[in-house]
Amino acid sequence: MGLFQSKGKIYKPVAEINLRAESDEPYTHANVKAPRVAGFLVKIFAWILESWILGPTVLHILKKDNLVHKLVSFAEIPESPMFTATHTIEDLREQEVTCIDPNLTPSERVKEALDCLPASLETTLETGFKRWTIQDFSRAYNSGETTPFKVAKRFLAALENSSVPHLQMSFFINYDAKEILKQATESSLRYEKGTPISVLDGVLVAVKDEIDCLPYPTTGGTKWLHKARPCTDDAACVKKLRSCGAILVGKTNMHELGAGTSGINPHYGPARNPYNINRVSGGSSSGSAASVCAGLCPVALGVDGGGSVRMPAALCGVVGFKPTTGRFPSSGVLPLNWTVGMAGILAGTVEDVLIIYAAIANDISAFQPKSLLPEFNIPQLKSSHLLTNIKFAKYGKWFNDSSADIRSCCNDALQLLSKRYGWKTVDVTIPEIEEMRLAHYVTIGSECTSSLAPQLEKINYGELGWDVRVALQVYGSFSSREYLNAQRIRNRQMQFHKEIFKRADVIVTPTTGVTAYPLQRDAFSTGELDYINGAALIRFSIAGNFLGLPAVTVLAGYDTEGMPIGLQFIGKPWSEATLLHLAFAIQAMFIHSYRKPEVFYDLLKTE
Amino acid sequence: MGLFQSKGKIYKPVAEINLRAESDEPYTHANVKAPRVAGFLVKIFAWILESWILGPTVLHILKKDNLVHKLVSFAEIPESPMFTATHTIEDLREQEVTCIDPNLTPSERVKEALDCLPASLETTLETGFKRWTIQDFSRAYNSGETTPFKVAKRFLAALENSSVPHLQMSFFINYDAKEILKQATESSLRYEKGTPISVLDGVLVAVKDEIDCLPYPTTGGTKWLHKARPCTDDAACVKKLRSCGAILVGKTNMHELGAGTSGINPHYGPARNPYNINRVSGGSSSGSAASVCAGLCPVALGVDGGGSVRMPAALCGVVGFKPTTGRFPSSGVLPLNWTVGMAGILAGTVEDVLIIYAAIANDISAFQPKSLLPEFNIPQLKSSHLLTNIKFAKYGKWFNDSSADIRSCCNDALQLLSKRYGWKTVDVTIPEIEEMRLAHYVTIGSECTSSLAPQLEKINYGELGWDVRVALQVYGSFSSREYLNAQRIRNRQMQFHKEIFKRADVIVTPTTGVTAYPLQRDAFSTGELDYINGAALIRFSIAGNFLGLPAVTVLAGYDTEGMPIGLQFIGKPWSEATLLHLAFAIQAMFIHSYRKPEVFYDLLKTE
Repeated sequence: MGLFQSKGKIYKPVAEINLRAESDEPYTHANVKAPRVAGFLVKIFAWILESWILGPTVLHILKKDNLVHKLVSFAEIPESPMFTATHTIEDLREQEVTCIDPNLTPSERVKEALDCLPASLETTLETGFKRWTIQDFSRAYNSGETTPFKVAKRFLAALENSSVPHLQMSFFINYDAKEILKQATESSLRYEKGTPISVLDGVLVAVKDEIDCLPYPTTGGTKWLHKARPCTDDAACVKKLRSCGAILVGKTNMHELGAGTSGINPHYGPARNPYNINRVSGGSSSGSAASVCAGLCPVALGVDGGGSVRMPAALCGVVGFKPTTGRFPSSGVLPLNWTVGMAGILAGTVEDVLIIYAAIANDISAFQPKSLLPEFNIPQLKSSHLLTNIKFAKYGKWFNDSSADIRSCCNDALQLLSKRYGWKTVDVTIPEIEEMRLAHYVTIGSECTSSLAPQLEKINYGELGWDVRVALQVYGSFSSREYLNAQRIRNRQMQFHKEIFKRADVIVTPTTGVTAYPLQRDAFSTGELDYINGAALIRFSIAGNFLGLPAVTVLAGYDTEGMPIGLQFIGKPWSEATLLHLAFAIQAMFIHSYRKPEVFYDLLKTE
Repeated sequence: MGLFQSKGKIYKPVAEINLRAESDEPYTHANVKAPRVAGFLVKIFAWILESWILGPTVLHILKKDNLVHKLVSFAEIPESPMFTATHTIEDLREQEVTCIDPNLTPSERVKEALDCLPASLETTLETGFKRWTIQDFSRAYNSGETTPFKVAKRFLAALENSSVPHLQMSFFINYDAKEILKQATESSLRYEKGTPISVLDGVLVAVKDEIDCLPYPTTGGTKWLHKARPCTDDAACVKKLRSCGAILVGKTNMHELGAGTSGINPHYGPARNPYNINRVSGGSSSGSAASVCAGLCPVALGVDGGGSVRMPAALCGVVGFKPTTGRFPSSGVLPLNWTVGMAGILAGTVEDVLIIYAAIANDISAFQPKSLLPEFNIPQLKSSHLLTNIKFAKYGKWFNDSSADIRSCCNDALQLLSKRYGWKTVDVTIPEIEEMRLAHYVTIGSECTSSLAPQLEKINYGELGWDVRVALQVYGSFSSREYLNAQRIRNRQMQFHKEIFKRADVIVTPTTGVTAYPLQRDAFSTGELDYINGAALIRFSIAGNFLGLPAVTVLAGYDTEGMPIGLQFIGKPWSEATLLHLAFAIQAMFIHSYRKPEVFYDLLKTE
């Protein structure tokens, strides 16, 4: 009987499952059976998993204890597999939007986006802290108040300052001062001549080291991947920003291979949280989130395969945005996984997300035939145009499976929203959330293995971080049956979400179940295995990846220790404009009480 | 290093591969390293593979020796995975076709098909042997020459005759005389009243026991599957034929679980070849092919996951047709695999394929949104409308990797075609055919495992045939990395074939590399493991399944021992009408020399 034993869950057909609030579907809290491990113990654990004799047995126990066997491997699932999270076009009829012609150049699209934006952020700030936006930089360049060259110099000084022994922020893996100043000089010249390319001209943009950006290697947070896969061109999304005149300032730090959520990189240092340098920044786009948070650039690119843009954005108190799968071009992004990951945007404000989104989205070449090209709407954000009649789907048991501070902050935010804008909450049940988390894990692990294994064969394992060695052993342990069962769960969830979106415009959740937790020194060289915090961080992220839905996180407050709390909206396929509308409304409600991070660089301050 | 060792092939990027005739891409003959095994040795082999200790090691050696490791498991493949063989709509501009409105009912579509057909087959037959067509039955019913009831009675008598000890044809797994006569009575009444539903009214249709058809259980060729999955409704394709008045005469024999190509079923007997009852009929739709061949019904439904319609059709000298993936509805077909298999048609003539195709194709509910609905063309087959300007792609090394008789028969047929119709042959190279066969094997094995494993857990393995026990162990041995690598190979092949179809209308091959080979008595109770004949049978089938391309096989002659030889055309996506045009032309060329099978029942003979 070899292969076909052990007991699995027998799933009911989707049609029999009640998605109403009163459903008796159970909510399964991720009961992770694995204590935090760091330092030498991680090494021992990696050695055990890599051993031919003990490894398979320990992996078997791990998968059994953590319900992978019951909920995925040996489950009986009536639905057939759905392999990708691609969406057909639907008639969305979004309110208060401008439809962009996808044939426009990136700089023309950016201009359209500007026309949808208020001239400046509201200015009556309680805390006196304000993040500079793309428009602020552009205005300062146009008025001659400063120049891209001066700002680039300040950026370089700030980066140097951030590396002093008592800070060691580890924002970047790679940056080249000469290269940055060259771009800045060219941009300054354009302003001198009065011919800036777009509002992005001279604006600093950082890029996660998982996305190709010349002249840098793409390390993926490793010490070796760039040798196996040389970077020979800008990624498509980078190319578009460069064509708008943006200054690409280098490659941000990340969790090695995106295989973790803490942002602790043993090779390039842990990317520290600017709100408290002894806390994690979250991952895997840790450096991008921390850089934006610390004011080093108004926007940065990240990659989101399992919340990797939204989680660090929430932990660092910035906006994180992952569009619908397919909305951004994927060429030049490390192919660590294909069916769950894509590039996303981190920015200080929703306005800046919108500008970058307009520049990158709807790459015509990606939609073949043209009849598959979805509408490309951007929200009309001038204050007179706020949406009415929005309905939030909320699954209480899930929403409240978060720390007390997050719970109360996010619930308060919802109440404020409904009071101020008249938006309504629809109580729903989203079944099988833990099942989806495990199915996503099997998927991303399998895809990462198929992608990296040929390279991994050629390197010395000593070049890998210890926590990643553990992750890779688990990633490589899945059978094709497990992979296919995971895709059946994707099919179920797609149907559940489709039903829920018939009753509501968006799903609302906290972005994470915990805020930025302490960095512990024993993890610096080995990384740490902290699957309990990991599961709490990722709890609300999966639908965005596994189902390809657009999602955005916005700062909604701080916990009692001053750590930022993010509120997340998950939208219908292709409903990015609606999501950004909502994100803008939240921002407008809270921007007056934004707090300044402990580490912050003001690149536009008047000398 | 555990998972990441052993040497794999490093694939060049697709763009670097030359598809012209002069390409230096090697042709890899499937060098199967596994001798034919039957009887007690199969049992021992099954026991070894099922053992916890020896099983994994022997599977490892099998996969290594048969190049699965080198070409799939540990290969380095630059392309990303392509998970399904779905095709977007292309502007085909097929010649000499009628476009059918998909909103028509099945009987209305059948009427449209009739308008495209010549009134009768050419009648100057050299051999004096002619198969009765749907139109022949319809004419005989309309003229009162005979009735559906009389034909049904003859069918039942024939089936009884075929079960006598010296024949034991094992055509059917299940049929119910009362049920058949009930349908026949109703149909006869309709003719009496002058109100037949369509040309299919009263025509006998057999259904492979992998497709739901009331009131029968769907066994999939097993003794247990119907208990785990009761049949509660007709499959969508059966429903359409029933709505046209067809008499569904029962469930045909098949290779157990479709997991083999010989058609030797240990539970229901080997489906014998009507041309020589001591030869195999081929599989897995063995009973459907043999029934049509023996004149029991003009048409039958099969399922084609790896040539399973086309191979037995070729071995039994009938027409076998597998449309583009998605063209037929899949509901009610056993979900043994999802990305490679679909229903297909077996018939005595191309005209009858066309009628059934028209009744079943383009199920509107399957194409969401409607913009994905491909054009639904049927060929205009009245003799004045033959196509001109057809270009065949031929890969010589592959084409000629078949028995001497097949090689010369199929080459002669091509020459005749080019002489008679002026069609041209374009010499091409189709690279990595053996790679594709292995990738398809990994795919179908993995999908079958994910589909059946929950049921297999619950049964006693003694209920399974021995050859299938072996197959299931191999099927269950694949990792998610192997599955994903197989999908990368699918992506490559899709690109290769797209390029080839820019230069030619169809790809032409023999249907199989061998003709019907001897049935050996030692295989009757255990099945046999004959991977050498298996690989030769399946050699030309894979692109139809793995790439979802339409394909048709037509009788083109006989080998020196009188066994039928099939010629296959593989078409562009959605080009069924063109394929049927070509099939009709071949049929017209050879129909005069069709030979009568050793076992043949003439259900329309005048009393």
